[in-house]
Amino acid sequence: MAGNTFGKLFQITTFGESHGEANGVVIDGCPAGLAVDINYVQQQLDRRRPGQSAITTQRKESDTVKFISGIFEGKTLGSPIAAIIPNEDHRSGDYDALKDVYRPSHADYTYQQKYGIRDHRGGGRSSARETACRVVAGSIAELFLKTEGIEIIAFVSSVGKIDSNFDFDNLSRDLVDLSLVRCPDLEISGLMEQAINEAKTSGDSLGGIITCVVRNCPVGLGEPVFDRLQADLAKAMLSINAVKGFEYGSGFAGTHLKGSEHNDAFVSENGEVRTQTNHSGGIQGGISNGMDIYFRVAFKPTATISKPQDTLDVYGSAFTLAATGRHDPCVVPRAVPIVEAMTALVLADHLLRKRLSRI
Amino acid sequence: MAGNTFGKLFQITTFGESHGEANGVVIDGCPAGLAVDINYVQQQLDRRRPGQSAITTQRKESDTVKFISGIFEGKTLGSPIAAIIPNEDHRSGDYDALKDVYRPSHADYTYQQKYGIRDHRGGGRSSARETACRVVAGSIAELFLKTEGIEIIAFVSSVGKIDSNFDFDNLSRDLVDLSLVRCPDLEISGLMEQAINEAKTSGDSLGGIITCVVRNCPVGLGEPVFDRLQADLAKAMLSINAVKGFEYGSGFAGTHLKGSEHNDAFVSENGEVRTQTNHSGGIQGGISNGMDIYFRVAFKPTATISKPQDTLDVYGSAFTLAATGRHDPCVVPRAVPIVEAMTALVLADHLLRKRLSRI
Amino acid sequence: MAGNTFGKLFQITTFGESHGEANGVVIDGCPAGLAVDINYVQQQLDRRRPGQSAITTQRKESDTVKFISGIFEGKTLGSPIAAIIPNEDHRSGDYDALKDVYRPSHADYTYQQKYGIRDHRGGGRSSARETACRVVAGSIAELFLKTEGIEIIAFVSSVGKIDSNFDFDNLSRDLVDLSLVRCPDLEISGLMEQAINEAKTSGDSLGGIITCVVRNCPVGLGEPVFDRLQADLAKAMLSINAVKGFEYGSGFAGTHLKGSEHNDAFVSENGEVRTQTNHSGGIQGGISNGMDIYFRVAFKPTATISKPQDTLDVYGSAFTLAATGRHDPCVVPRAVPIVEAMTALVLADHLLRKRLSRI
Amino acid sequence: MAGNTFGKLFQITTFGESHGEANGVVIDGCPAGLAVDINYVQQQLDRRRPGQSAITTQRKESDTVKFISGIFEGKTLGSPIAAIIPNEDHRSGDYDALKDVYRPSHADYTYQQKYGIRDHRGGGRSSARETACRVVAGSIAELFLKTEGIEIIAFVSSVGKIDSNFDFDNLSRDLVDLSLVRCPDLEISGLMEQAINEAKTSGDSLGGIITCVVRNCPVGLGEPVFDRLQADLAKAMLSINAVKGFEYGSGFAGTHLKGSEHNDAFVSENGEVRTQTNHSGGIQGGISNGMDIYFRVAFKPTATISKPQDTLDVYGSAFTLAATGRHDPCVVPRAVPIVEAMTALVLADHLLRKRLSRI
Repeated sequence: MAGNTFGKLFQITTFGESHGEANGVVIDGCPAGLAVDINYVQQQLDRRRPGQSAITTQRKESDTVKFISGIFEGKTLGSPIAAIIPNEDHRSGDYDALKDVYRPSHADYTYQQKYGIRDHRGGGRSSARETACRVVAGSIAELFLKTEGIEIIAFVSSVGKIDSNFDFDNLSRDLVDLSLVRCPDLEISGLMEQAINEAKTSGDSLGGIITCVVRNCPVGLGEPVFDRLQADLAKAMLSINAVKGFEYGSGFAGTHLKGSEHNDAFVSENGEVRTQTNHSGGIQGGISNGMDIYFRVAFKPTATISKPQDTLDVYGSAFTLAATGRHDPCVVPRAVPIVEAMTALVLADHLLRKRLSRI
Repeated sequence: MAGNTFGKLFQITTFGESHGEANGVVIDGCPAGLAVDINYVQQQLDRRRPGQSAITTQRKESDTVKFISGIFEGKTLGSPIAAIIPNEDHRSGDYDALKDVYRPSHADYTYQQKYGIRDHRGGGRSSARETACRVVAGSIAELFLKTEGIEIIAFVSSVGKIDSNFDFDNLSRDLVDLSLVRCPDLEISGLMEQAINEAKTSGDSLGGIITCVVRNCPVGLGEPVFDRLQADLAKAMLSINAVKGFEYGSGFAGTHLKGSEHNDAFVSENGEVRTQTNHSGGIQGGISNGMDIYFRVAFKPTATISKPQDTLDVYGSAFTLAATGRHDPCVVPRAVPIVEAMTALVLADHLLRKRLSRI
Repeated sequence: MAGNTFGKLFQITTFGESHGEANGVVIDGCPAGLAVDINYVQQQLDRRRPGQSAITTQRKESDTVKFISGIFEGKTLGSPIAAIIPNEDHRSGDYDALKDVYRPSHADYTYQQKYGIRDHRGGGRSSARETACRVVAGSIAELFLKTEGIEIIAFVSSVGKIDSNFDFDNLSRDLVDLSLVRCPDLEISGLMEQAINEAKTSGDSLGGIITCVVRNCPVGLGEPVFDRLQADLAKAMLSINAVKGFEYGSGFAGTHLKGSEHNDAFVSENGEVRTQTNHSGGIQGGISNGMDIYFRVAFKPTATISKPQDTLDVYGSAFTLAATGRHDPCVVPRAVPIVEAMTALVLADHLLRKRLSRI
Repeated sequence: MAGNTFGKLFQITTFGESHGEANGVVIDGCPAGLAVDINYVQQQLDRRRPGQSAITTQRKESDTVKFISGIFEGKTLGSPIAAIIPNEDHRSGDYDALKDVYRPSHADYTYQQKYGIRDHRGGGRSSARETACRVVAGSIAELFLKTEGIEIIAFVSSVGKIDSNFDFDNLSRDLVDLSLVRCPDLEISGLMEQAINEAKTSGDSLGGIITCVVRNCPVGLGEPVFDRLQADLAKAMLSINAVKGFEYGSGFAGTHLKGSEHNDAFVSENGEVRTQTNHSGGIQGGISNGMDIYFRVAFKPTATISKPQDTLDVYGSAFTLAATGRHDPCVVPRAVPIVEAMTALVLADHLLRKRLSRI
């Protein structure tokens, strides 16, 4: 009820403050008998890790996940899977100056008002560090989805004003990872990298858009009327730090089409029902229809910048803030595995829910 | 778990098929002692009703709500509030021809695949008729919010390719309702109305965008980390039929700004903490900050059109469909109270959740 | 959250005040494709109905259930099943005298304190009338359980100080219903009936115990560690009006045995794993083991009696109360189908949950 | 959904296998600003710890709790409180012989059947070791309850056939802890201790009953109709390993009384509403009425005994088992803090839920 739990059947609860002892997650509802490749989990976590490239924050955390329950001889037991990521590079001292300041467009003010207390070190619970736990849990969810052949790939499709119109038919995670920015359109990727470096140099930051594609999703995931697949995906995405928007299928641009242009005609391909176009984004009536699911997620520019900014301290006095801590000039490259993780969690939940639909 | 329940503390469960006996809703968790103005509920329901103007469906339903529990001598008892809207204008016969057809971009195919059975009459459970129940429940939620002075106003900001940049500082529901389209920018509204009529004449349909503003929301609504206010709003909106996208505050366009442009500087106004700009859309760290909350919701063009379309029947054979039933050439005018209702439900839920945050 | 919902996957929400428009229930999560025999539902409801025999309340209600959604051409759609039982025999006037009185051992005082408002007519929401809805929902659950061969039979095993040690191997519902008291031990049943009539004549009331047996329950129902099958059964039973205790298997008497006497040795019968004794009551580690599940439920004597009693009115003044309304001198005969219904709801929920346990 | 979570607003999720890395718990929903006395938590944990006296298991575990999130400078942050209890005294080897055996009246068989896999070492997830986490969480809940003056005291009221009728008006935890058996009736306690020692010597075990009293509980805790306070208490108790029964107030014995004897007359004491007797056990209509809440919990004799027993191995072959591991000859003395913890969790949950009842 306090908002730290996601999912209904495949359910996770995360915990931990940015500069506390550790961050962690409990995954409850993962079916028994799933083979867990811990290397895969760590590999996804490494894709989110700070300090992985020149364009990400230089904060150093090894982010090593340690499983402490729920797995026995390499397989899930059906009991809760708990995992811990110790917080190594505390440097809490970096944050002493922020104890009494409300950083602009951060959660300092709202947390203080809501709870009457806050852990100011690195944002405490509001830090994006919490998303590391989502990546751990999402990777387990992905392993479950892979048993059904479901594949999830996210990539950066825009940084600031630089857009890519990459055709996602030829997508693979390897291709995505060829680019520091995680934009598989390698030419555009270079421009994006340059823009990020310029923002960094000028003490500023950039936003961007991540596109995510789900392939080979079976028909029947999603529950009418409130837990439509797109509704749960939207919630999942908007629960990620810095996300400002979500659209699936034709999205906002689809409002410009007429019904006769937008409707996806059903056709039969080798006896299978398919649609000729896919403005529906693989979801109809809130339920997956077997076509590719795709959606786009907007991230605002990082709020932490080193340019001086006007703000208030907790006493209501004006204060000029210039961040000196380490931060990402653009979060989207590191957010790619987070988007994938949240997508996997939604799908795993609905894959289980689908088991309940018929007698 | 089957997706018919929304909200955690202020919780609703809707039921009913489009052409069954009735649609209805149970509201559980509404605090005791709330004065219920049933006229207000009916008035909001009337704003959603089919047949209210020349540009909406000509289906005739009086949509009269009947409360059957939870209210005693004009006040809520704290027990579940059940309400029923009988289905009057069945004309199930209109749908016999659709029994074996998968209408393009409708839920027919996915429901059939998921459940192995479906009520084909008017879409059954997948019909937007279900949203009438949301309006009833949302109106009760609004009455609760009004006890705290919270105000919600939605309006149509685009239809097809026609946009309005109406400044929502001067907004009122009365102004919105001056326009058949529910666009308070009355000049633009005329163009939108014309476009809708053209679409109707040509047997086609249009999409559009609804903008919603929440004024006077107290600080502290929203729960980190998964139940952020924007995440629950996104889910609420994407759970509405035909919605394809959601953005709040700066939204997708915000990805074009730099951090130094996007950050909202804190300032003190008469001793109150405010922000100079409001790219945050009234929400920071997932929690309302006291500024106006605003967001935009994209609706696809109505899937039901009278132009002939290619599709399949349930046996996999090609079929040409031309809808003869009554339908809206553009859903956004009637969706305005639905957006308001879902917003009210999210806020009422979080207003209650806020009671739990401190010792 | 307000306590009107039971179950997690097979979930019901009841609504309605005793003397309001109607009582009702929404069943959400019943799988699609279940054939619904409405006669069976009505028949179980008739077993709970007031006025069915000389030893039950003389209040007359036909208690006719009307389904308004979720069933199409005799089968469940997978959408919510809503059912209504109109309240016919209001006689609200009977209750005017009670408007300002706190009836002893009733919910009047606690409801008033909790909510600051109450529907005093017949107890409003606290009336056992609400359990009619549970019987409707429980009957649907039973139909689902029958598809797996699961059978539930409850019976009265004691009334006041009169006990029966009926061997439940020879039990059937028909046998139970041969007795007005619903005690299949027909000799003892006569004594019980006599005791109830004596209590009635003297303006007093009796309590009793209901025993319930579940046969042919598959192995694997129940979730460690909090949602053990016995924990959910205990909650279900203690949620019934007037229930004061629950024990399963060896129960309280089992505390007198030594471990070596109490342990149930595993044995192999025709290749199947069984236990030689069944002190475990068919549940081990919170999970059904395939043996008969059995438990006992204690009901206090009816609180409403016609003998004069001392109490207070809402102003804190002493008041002498002698009930004149119609009431049951002993609730256990009519509570038999309620115990069965709640048992069915718990098992249906866990039958669905079992689908989630393995990859 | 997999049963590892308890509570709705004050919610805990436990994790961990008996011989895995650690056991742990996440407490979500504890309000911000609560001062946490970690010594108190550890002290309650010590009362549950194995090896604390001659009549408990000789397994040695220091059971030291380590908090890793949610507490900052001695106060709760409103974020999830995670706590870990490392498993020190593994001796997994002790259990190798049990890998292929179904211990009688244990969870081995049902876990294997449900999940197709099990951690056989010490019962894995089914071990009562999990309850240590409940004590940690329950102690935090108690600290919350103490801010309202609520007090919970449990004690052993019977062991095997030895009963105590201790008058709980003079109860204190100190008095309870004067007795190794935790029976405050010190004369009877000596007899109980002797009985436990005899059982131990003969390789056998005993059951018993714990009585629990809640003092100074405010009026208004409990939610009609399913989440009655007694229903949630019953579920809490039946979710504890080895529990077979629950009764509150007059309980099973109350079925022997007539209504006129059982009803609790309301009286006014110094302007406060009280009841003359308390057969209701402090709960009416599912809601606390301000009187003492009291209930009794039946525990079966420990299933693990060293006397040889007949059973089956996983291949269906007969097997004679004589436990050699360390185990409690009677669990009730160590179960006292577990009963208190589960009681505290139920009350903390309902104390928060009460905040939602009125406008």
